[in-house]
Amino acid sequence: MMVVMKPDATEDEIRAVVARIESTGARARPARGEEVTVIGAIGDREHIARLELDGSPGVDRVVPILKPYKLASAQIRHGERSVLEISGRKVGGDHFALIAGPCTVESRDQLLTAAHSVNAGGATMLRGGAYKPRTSPYAFHGLGIEGLWLLAEAKAQTGLPVVTELMDVRDLDPVLEVADVLQIGARNMQNFALLRAAGRSGKPILLKRGGGATLEEWLLAAEYVLADGNENVILCERGIRTFERASRHTLDLNGVALARERTHLPVIVDPSHATGKRSLILPVSLAAVAAGAAGLIIEVHPDPDQALSDAAQTVDFAHFTAIAAAVRTVAAVAGGYYSQAL
Amino acid sequence: MMVVMKPDATEDEIRAVVARIESTGARARPARGEEVTVIGAIGDREHIARLELDGSPGVDRVVPILKPYKLASAQIRHGERSVLEISGRKVGGDHFALIAGPCTVESRDQLLTAAHSVNAGGATMLRGGAYKPRTSPYAFHGLGIEGLWLLAEAKAQTGLPVVTELMDVRDLDPVLEVADVLQIGARNMQNFALLRAAGRSGKPILLKRGGGATLEEWLLAAEYVLADGNENVILCERGIRTFERASRHTLDLNGVALARERTHLPVIVDPSHATGKRSLILPVSLAAVAAGAAGLIIEVHPDPDQALSDAAQTVDFAHFTAIAAAVRTVAAVAGGYYSQAL
Amino acid sequence: MMVVMKPDATEDEIRAVVARIESTGARARPARGEEVTVIGAIGDREHIARLELDGSPGVDRVVPILKPYKLASAQIRHGERSVLEISGRKVGGDHFALIAGPCTVESRDQLLTAAHSVNAGGATMLRGGAYKPRTSPYAFHGLGIEGLWLLAEAKAQTGLPVVTELMDVRDLDPVLEVADVLQIGARNMQNFALLRAAGRSGKPILLKRGGGATLEEWLLAAEYVLADGNENVILCERGIRTFERASRHTLDLNGVALARERTHLPVIVDPSHATGKRSLILPVSLAAVAAGAAGLIIEVHPDPDQALSDAAQTVDFAHFTAIAAAVRTVAAVAGGYYSQAL
Amino acid sequence: MMVVMKPDATEDEIRAVVARIESTGARARPARGEEVTVIGAIGDREHIARLELDGSPGVDRVVPILKPYKLASAQIRHGERSVLEISGRKVGGDHFALIAGPCTVESRDQLLTAAHSVNAGGATMLRGGAYKPRTSPYAFHGLGIEGLWLLAEAKAQTGLPVVTELMDVRDLDPVLEVADVLQIGARNMQNFALLRAAGRSGKPILLKRGGGATLEEWLLAAEYVLADGNENVILCERGIRTFERASRHTLDLNGVALARERTHLPVIVDPSHATGKRSLILPVSLAAVAAGAAGLIIEVHPDPDQALSDAAQTVDFAHFTAIAAAVRTVAAVAGGYYSQAL
Repeated sequence: MMVVMKPDATEDEIRAVVARIESTGARARPARGEEVTVIGAIGDREHIARLELDGSPGVDRVVPILKPYKLASAQIRHGERSVLEISGRKVGGDHFALIAGPCTVESRDQLLTAAHSVNAGGATMLRGGAYKPRTSPYAFHGLGIEGLWLLAEAKAQTGLPVVTELMDVRDLDPVLEVADVLQIGARNMQNFALLRAAGRSGKPILLKRGGGATLEEWLLAAEYVLADGNENVILCERGIRTFERASRHTLDLNGVALARERTHLPVIVDPSHATGKRSLILPVSLAAVAAGAAGLIIEVHPDPDQALSDAAQTVDFAHFTAIAAAVRTVAAVAGGYYSQAL
Repeated sequence: MMVVMKPDATEDEIRAVVARIESTGARARPARGEEVTVIGAIGDREHIARLELDGSPGVDRVVPILKPYKLASAQIRHGERSVLEISGRKVGGDHFALIAGPCTVESRDQLLTAAHSVNAGGATMLRGGAYKPRTSPYAFHGLGIEGLWLLAEAKAQTGLPVVTELMDVRDLDPVLEVADVLQIGARNMQNFALLRAAGRSGKPILLKRGGGATLEEWLLAAEYVLADGNENVILCERGIRTFERASRHTLDLNGVALARERTHLPVIVDPSHATGKRSLILPVSLAAVAAGAAGLIIEVHPDPDQALSDAAQTVDFAHFTAIAAAVRTVAAVAGGYYSQAL
Repeated sequence: MMVVMKPDATEDEIRAVVARIESTGARARPARGEEVTVIGAIGDREHIARLELDGSPGVDRVVPILKPYKLASAQIRHGERSVLEISGRKVGGDHFALIAGPCTVESRDQLLTAAHSVNAGGATMLRGGAYKPRTSPYAFHGLGIEGLWLLAEAKAQTGLPVVTELMDVRDLDPVLEVADVLQIGARNMQNFALLRAAGRSGKPILLKRGGGATLEEWLLAAEYVLADGNENVILCERGIRTFERASRHTLDLNGVALARERTHLPVIVDPSHATGKRSLILPVSLAAVAAGAAGLIIEVHPDPDQALSDAAQTVDFAHFTAIAAAVRTVAAVAGGYYSQAL
Repeated sequence: MMVVMKPDATEDEIRAVVARIESTGARARPARGEEVTVIGAIGDREHIARLELDGSPGVDRVVPILKPYKLASAQIRHGERSVLEISGRKVGGDHFALIAGPCTVESRDQLLTAAHSVNAGGATMLRGGAYKPRTSPYAFHGLGIEGLWLLAEAKAQTGLPVVTELMDVRDLDPVLEVADVLQIGARNMQNFALLRAAGRSGKPILLKRGGGATLEEWLLAAEYVLADGNENVILCERGIRTFERASRHTLDLNGVALARERTHLPVIVDPSHATGKRSLILPVSLAAVAAGAAGLIIEVHPDPDQALSDAAQTVDFAHFTAIAAAVRTVAAVAGGYYSQAL
């Protein structure tokens, strides 16, 4: 950590900062420039994270040097990528995950049809929401427990592992009975109570990036799970919120490529939420794969126009099958450019 | 709701959209322009909210006409402002709330000193966090239950109602024993499980705007609480996330003034989080009051430089007392410009 | 255009809006809902663009229906893509443009070395700035006229058409003598005086998207050039400004894919500025191609670490050659997914 | 400047960075931590600004320590505020500027009526556009030279100094004949050719902040003018572009308060563009004044609903007069809180 002092900071103020740094056991090294003094703090990463020197007398600002996440960092694995095992399927490294299914479980017929179709179309896991976070209290919020039973049935019939969202810590037990992967939604990325409860279950976590969250905050949210001893985290970019509203969100592929550099965890992309627009799912899926994403999670519905949620961004089976084939083709070509880099 | 069809939409596609609108009991009115057709849907607001026509064949986009929140809207009270009663203090309309106290309850001494001082300085309620959401798992997360006991003691000594954050639905019972106002933090604004549990308790809710949330999403989050029968919601703007990182967040006073137009609920401002910088608390507090905010919530600590969280944006007692006096002076002048407008 | 009236708009206010619409020769069609009245305006697109009804008494807001650009729209070519001819090279449709070269022309040796190398590496045009917009007045601003001479020499030696930026309308004549494509930089996207002067020269224009500009504003800037009779516009996405500062900008590939739907003009990507980081150029270039971009513009320098500008995002020749080969491979695969769609 | 090396940077890479820093005459001071090495560079600010070490082998990132603007900085005047003299009126320090008038000069009658009315209502300068930058090529672009003559007449009749926008460097001479202040619009904030030409004329410059520009970029744009020897710059915040589109832009009052700390130049606010909404002009104007703004620039029109541009955000004379009175009242109260601080 570097503490940049104000140009008019006094010697007493500099000494006070040095003293506070040293009080935590870290070493402080002031460098006096012609215009300002900068004090370097060298020591334990966690203690340094707790120093709140910003705003102290004479301090202009504090510049962190080390990344604040440790277990999620690429360094800790010396550049080797994590490979997760999820009910017999691998994700990460050379193993591509294609997760597909309806936004919301609406009925037995809808879900089973969807599950068989995405299975035939090349999906490696099934997604489907039993509990749905909705911006409006007046929208459809999912079938709840009944939705979970249907997911269990779909899994039994197709063998596809189930990815489903946990919204409420009080639903943890029933969700754990069915889910192979617990999804933490974008709105809950910093719902730390939920994150911890989900993480401590030991189940693999699919952690969506919040629409207003930085790359660093996203990796710190993953660090919560890792710090509790659960190493099975999949990161999922699903678009960030920007001034551009022509698409629902702005897909941040720079962030995906950077995340690949900074963490060993698999990073996948949700083209459905990232675009909000059916016609963009194909180009954006191919782009994600070409940028090195380890997987995709796509909303698929037997009759998208009748879907009770996210209709505009949902594709039908024929469309999904075409996307899956194109994705596999591009992945076969692009994959080679990344394996060497690691 | 208006459905704008694509320029090349066919008659069949137009008829299909009309049919879907009418199937929900609403009326559909197509207007055929030279280049495009626009279909108006008139009917029940909740049913309309559930139509997911975006993405249907031939549809270019769907334009909502009515605001999606109803109970929170200014119309429902015909422009009259809500006044909340909180343990004998009023908030809203002509009643200004000055909430102050430490970010986090750190010790008995720290909290009691703070409570007495902000009381003397003009605060009308006491803030203090027993449970703290922190971006990093390695930061200090609050004293928990012990913090709640200290808040109860501070309230007993000063008579100040207590505002404290609820982060985990499992902590609801102990928090309810102490809190006069349940704070829902910015990161949890769309944690609907928490929002519902807090709302159903009947306690007043202080609902912070998420850093990536639009005005409409914020009001819809309040609608969740109102729809469950709890009318005691205070909205709190605490800065949104923008490309400008010179301050911690960007305070959205346009949003405060717009919220005053759109909802009857009291809207207050958190200058501490909105700026992240001690020297900006005074100017931004005065600006908020001048823009018509119904209150402020300010972080105050006996020794800000030693605070375990948010040190950079925390003021000491002398500073708080000066801010409180200035705020009262500006409020006395600015208040008059708003009472007529309502 | 639809005019949404306020819930409490009076009959007189509705009649006044109708009268203003009809005064421009357009037709007005009020639709009275239970809560609000919406007035549709049907008529000449340009007249409608000039109606400023937002803010009129009783008006809640105005919703545009038609896109405000006409000549740039995909409709005007019935979905056929424009193909530009630039000194013997084609851009657009199936024709991929790979533009490469240094950010700034620094010396004869630097430029000629770069030109020969990118030519050998597969570039189809040469980029190089003689006039450079720099955020700071103290940075290096380019060689000016001398830089233009060097570009002319590089073109003579390699045959590569030259893309160079025009910053000042007073430099138009000398730049026209050398440039095959006039680049309008992101900061000048809405410098309408420059845009018009450049457009009227008849030269092909490479129009970068402003970092704070919406897709619609970008297409309207292109419309300025088209409206003056110059149909040779290449659109270039180079990242938008968002809260995420881990990369220099946020590449908006959603915007690239949407632009392909909305305009017939070729859309290319600048991975150098969009990321600001050398290690991201490869993944982001592949992603852009996979998303259907018609070309790339990449900063290449003989010794990037010694570059006088944009060093962090500049690649060397070996790196460029590897990227070019990978891009060609992915383009060969991905191209097929787009030709059918058009 | 601090250069943060990567955790795996080699000794050779560290030595190479040290050598490059020292080659510019600056001193380099490496501090070796347990995980990373940080190299401080101490020396001439301009030389340091030209070092492009970001991206060099082994470099993780470069952290600037000093602000990159010098002449605009508060330090250079030791905290004293600049006071500009503009045709007999003062701006800055204790001198408040109230600039008012129509967005665009439309006719003799419109402008003269407006000029007399805002003069009577308390304006200290007249605004009015003869050349208007418009997003669409099909919108009204102003009367040009004829508009300038009308401004000259309005000034002769009222004595109000004229603020008008310069869009094209080729219009400089006629604009200089009439203008007392040259406005550089938000879209042209980084049109450096225009900025330099305007600045070198010696006229006072009103520099609007670009909607996508950081505080630092804005001050660097002012530095361009100051570096050319023109010290008469007024900074004008007019809203930045964020994800929130409920208002036209997001007014950044944090930025205004921060700008007051960082520069000696007067900082004013444009509530018309910052909100885009008539009903917000009053609250936002009061807020700006309460935050310490040195002035306001407000769009006023005899009949706002008939205005050819910006109708939604334009107020009529009665509204302006009420705002002006309220602003004066709040300024009288709030002003006192700032004079001490300087």
